[in-house]
Amino acid sequence: MVGNDSSAWSQDETIRILIASDIHLGYLEEHPVRGEDSFIAFEETLSLAVQYDVDLVLLGGDLFHHAKPSLNCIYKCTEIVRKYCFGDKPVSIELLSDQTVNFSRSVNYEDPNLNVSYPILSIHGNHDDPVGREGISSLDILSTGGLVNYFGKWTDYTHVRISPVLLQKGATKLALYGLSHLKDQRLSRLFQEKKVEMLRDEEHDWFNILVLHQNRAEDRGAGNFIKEDELPKFLDLVVWGHEHDCELFDMKGSSEKNHFNVIQPGSTVATSLAAGEARPKHCALLQIHKTDFILTAVPLKTVRPFIFKTVVLSEHNLGDENVNESEKVQDFLKEKVNEAIVEAKSLLSGDPRQPTMPLIRISVFYEREDQIFNRARFGQNFSGIVANSNDILLLKRERKIRERRQGQGDEINVADYVADSTNVETLLQSYYEAMPPERRLAALPVQLMTEAVRDYTLKQNEDILRHVLEAHRRRCITTLLESNTDTEIEAIADRLRVLRDEIDSADITQLAALKAPPVSEQIVVEGSSDEEVQVEMEVTGRGRGRGSRGGRGSRARGSRARGRGREEAAPPASPVVAPTERRSTPRRSAAQRSATWIHNLASKAHRRDSSDIDDSE
Amino acid sequence: MVGNDSSAWSQDETIRILIASDIHLGYLEEHPVRGEDSFIAFEETLSLAVQYDVDLVLLGGDLFHHAKPSLNCIYKCTEIVRKYCFGDKPVSIELLSDQTVNFSRSVNYEDPNLNVSYPILSIHGNHDDPVGREGISSLDILSTGGLVNYFGKWTDYTHVRISPVLLQKGATKLALYGLSHLKDQRLSRLFQEKKVEMLRDEEHDWFNILVLHQNRAEDRGAGNFIKEDELPKFLDLVVWGHEHDCELFDMKGSSEKNHFNVIQPGSTVATSLAAGEARPKHCALLQIHKTDFILTAVPLKTVRPFIFKTVVLSEHNLGDENVNESEKVQDFLKEKVNEAIVEAKSLLSGDPRQPTMPLIRISVFYEREDQIFNRARFGQNFSGIVANSNDILLLKRERKIRERRQGQGDEINVADYVADSTNVETLLQSYYEAMPPERRLAALPVQLMTEAVRDYTLKQNEDILRHVLEAHRRRCITTLLESNTDTEIEAIADRLRVLRDEIDSADITQLAALKAPPVSEQIVVEGSSDEEVQVEMEVTGRGRGRGSRGGRGSRARGSRARGRGREEAAPPASPVVAPTERRSTPRRSAAQRSATWIHNLASKAHRRDSSDIDDSE
Repeated sequence: MVGNDSSAWSQDETIRILIASDIHLGYLEEHPVRGEDSFIAFEETLSLAVQYDVDLVLLGGDLFHHAKPSLNCIYKCTEIVRKYCFGDKPVSIELLSDQTVNFSRSVNYEDPNLNVSYPILSIHGNHDDPVGREGISSLDILSTGGLVNYFGKWTDYTHVRISPVLLQKGATKLALYGLSHLKDQRLSRLFQEKKVEMLRDEEHDWFNILVLHQNRAEDRGAGNFIKEDELPKFLDLVVWGHEHDCELFDMKGSSEKNHFNVIQPGSTVATSLAAGEARPKHCALLQIHKTDFILTAVPLKTVRPFIFKTVVLSEHNLGDENVNESEKVQDFLKEKVNEAIVEAKSLLSGDPRQPTMPLIRISVFYEREDQIFNRARFGQNFSGIVANSNDILLLKRERKIRERRQGQGDEINVADYVADSTNVETLLQSYYEAMPPERRLAALPVQLMTEAVRDYTLKQNEDILRHVLEAHRRRCITTLLESNTDTEIEAIADRLRVLRDEIDSADITQLAALKAPPVSEQIVVEGSSDEEVQVEMEVTGRGRGRGSRGGRGSRARGSRARGRGREEAAPPASPVVAPTERRSTPRRSAAQRSATWIHNLASKAHRRDSSDIDDSE
Repeated sequence: MVGNDSSAWSQDETIRILIASDIHLGYLEEHPVRGEDSFIAFEETLSLAVQYDVDLVLLGGDLFHHAKPSLNCIYKCTEIVRKYCFGDKPVSIELLSDQTVNFSRSVNYEDPNLNVSYPILSIHGNHDDPVGREGISSLDILSTGGLVNYFGKWTDYTHVRISPVLLQKGATKLALYGLSHLKDQRLSRLFQEKKVEMLRDEEHDWFNILVLHQNRAEDRGAGNFIKEDELPKFLDLVVWGHEHDCELFDMKGSSEKNHFNVIQPGSTVATSLAAGEARPKHCALLQIHKTDFILTAVPLKTVRPFIFKTVVLSEHNLGDENVNESEKVQDFLKEKVNEAIVEAKSLLSGDPRQPTMPLIRISVFYEREDQIFNRARFGQNFSGIVANSNDILLLKRERKIRERRQGQGDEINVADYVADSTNVETLLQSYYEAMPPERRLAALPVQLMTEAVRDYTLKQNEDILRHVLEAHRRRCITTLLESNTDTEIEAIADRLRVLRDEIDSADITQLAALKAPPVSEQIVVEGSSDEEVQVEMEVTGRGRGRGSRGGRGSRARGSRARGRGREEAAPPASPVVAPTERRSTPRRSAAQRSATWIHNLASKAHRRDSSDIDDSE
């Protein structure tokens, strides 16, 4: 694996690919300060494609933040693509496979009416997947406009069969397997059941790449992520989208080995103020020569500086007198923010396109109610100085976390599960499991409920709960009637009555609980967008430093060390996670999820057609 | 003007233009039967451009029905444009003027990265004008994607200054003046004040065309349409968008005359079930050779057949017995519908792309309440046979109209004004004028209110009323304070109090009246869309047969004669309007406008940024 030297490779036989993912165009586009961030990073990404003179650009999904992007967002995206990807430079990779099999329409660089010099190939993610009766994705718009080559769309949840895009440049042959986002639990089950098929030509030496957009982190809940060891061994590289933490390591290798490497580009814009998003952001340059490759992490220079810190108040001496505790805490935290502002200056790349006003997030553990204060008023001190001045602080009660560990009787408080869960799937799972048997859902599968709630929140589909519950009720009744022909009528009727009551109350009581978490559990809604929720977790310095889930809730292992500048640290040679300020306290996971936003979202406009909701098992 | 013969013209010096307007892509796109209509007509239009091998396609605005088209709509539009307008055929007209002055970006057929063979030039209409903080129109999306050349955008309401697109083909020189939609009242005033300027090069012989998208019909209310005689005399042709009735006559002419001809292409899809929309629909082929031109109306063959009839029940013998009057009426009307269905078959062009299930509208005048019935149930008889089966009938009470003419005391009933008005402007004007002086609006200009209500309805801007009233209140107070420095403080305070009360109550009482018309005034909401309202008017057979206003309410003079087929009638040699079935009754205008839809619309998603609302006088 050592010794690959691209200078010895014939350029005519070396495929050069710029890889990026999770660009989230349109994220916070109405924000007065941060509105341009996603577009600036996208423009830098494509400018790097030109600078490195690549053969193609490969995107790992979530090019758009919203399933229905605004006109302004489509407009800006189009402008940027036309500026960088069109031109006279010939594309020197040959497409060998059937375009109609892989792509939504014929490839733009082979279109005689378009002059494309840097073709973009993209799968869709969970944010830009197809919507509406016709199942049109924002990528379809770009595809039909000749701007992007959209591949890897798959809608059948009974099996997956991926036919690769076959590309050739001289003696180098690349088989590119694309799989756009599918629901993690469904896809995970298909992998377990060996129902994911990747077509192969075993006669020739292909360099095999899979690009997908799924949960990778293992703690997303059982069956809710894709296990690496279930992916086929013949792959040489896997490009993993969806996870927002950048995990890229310069590496050299060849396909003469037993297992693949994973490229996780991460997002190009922070869509949550979690520790993982504060890690330096990159694209990747992949060079392939026959069956050897060289991967180079390319730091992005236009990303807004972001400093993340954790502060445990009990570990600090805030002053002798106990009067006006809240004032003391505020003064202390102002100092911390000012330190972070100074620190953020070390992250400036000198690129004139880079926004300079930093993002600052201080995660604060407090002990007593008299220590808290109005966060918005606190933020006013940093208006015009910090880009997210209105939500710099995330306040968490330390004592409460300890108490919960010791158990507090039988009362089930959904807020406890909110605090402990990294995502809506584990939240519902643990919530239902904790219920006394007589209150557990008997007829309604937790998974069904989970998917419904996720679609309700992520896709702003107001009707989904009603649809799912109604469909499930019909199915239950049908099953009961069919399978119990010998049972007495009265028994069936009794069961139906129970089922009906259960289902009728399910959508009200469960959601009501979600909608009204106690005030003491902090609800954090990011920036001016009500579409983003932050979930955050501190763990030990061990682990792989992976796992932010942008857009819907982020989780990250390890936070950036204080004073560690981006230039000196990027790109990391190995996945080292620096120690945090919070060393002496027991390291506990602490997560929050806002639930009121579920309701806020419901009142939003972007309805989603429910026809693509498959509620069958 | 006679004797122009294109066969004698050199093709190298003849500019050929296909002209169409009001294509309204996405109109009723979710409708199970009519969803494709707008796209089919657009595709036919562009196929005609190829068939006639034109130099360019000129569109008169409202290419899209919605200011924020769905992804599916943009997708289909893009597919169609790429299918017909891209290719190797060279474009042989030369652009002489500065592209950056006229167009939103450089012209697609001069872009070295695009192969365009049939360039589309378009202004925007009132349906596809810019939205949002950034003022991005759906045409900007197409423009930046290289699909359409968007020109004539103007946002300054203090003056208009149009610089023409200068095109040349051999000795033929074309100056094309584009003016995208502006609010009619504002633009009309600018014309009166001589503040509309069209730049000219008087040294050379240019053939001068103006394309605009405004009210043309004179009965839209004072100052609410553009007067032809205020347009500059140097123009040779005016292409008039926005009016949905097709008014095209084959003609030959030259620019050596005193006044211009007007080309009114009309819409390519019926967006209301008004008589005017039932007229045969066309594009126009314009050939220009030096200063001579030939205009040819080209019938569209893919437009869904539409039969419009008026029935006055008192003129028909429905049977002797007076029992079960409602049944007799229904049987009679079923017969009428069946006649119309037969008649619609004569409108089939034989083109396989043409939808065959017809649109039928019977406008029924009844006398007594016992004659009415459930329209939806009536429509079920024609489900699967008539495309608009759920709203075939429009029921109007004949007696009521007569009574209203004789006056009924002092009580002001907004419904009367709804019934008599062709649009929201005249409705509000006459409503306010009819009020007793003590209830009239003193401080709030009717025009301000009118524009606010129009934006509220058409652009689905929920906040507009609040914004306008608030801005006006501020202005009133400022003016009062500034102008009355010598007046006693108490007098000012009194006036302010009155103003405040007036304004505070204005948005509630006026709108409340609009929202609740009496049930006996029929409210017609077209098809499955709640975005369209029908306003309809019968007048004498005189007049120019002009004036449908698609999308927001349509009005038409004259209805299609019974049994008059499209093939034999199209295109009309002169604007003859056939007599209707309703000959013996006094000819009165009768119009309806649904007002409840105002509320329905308010709950819709498409919010419009209010920043473009200029509430100054």
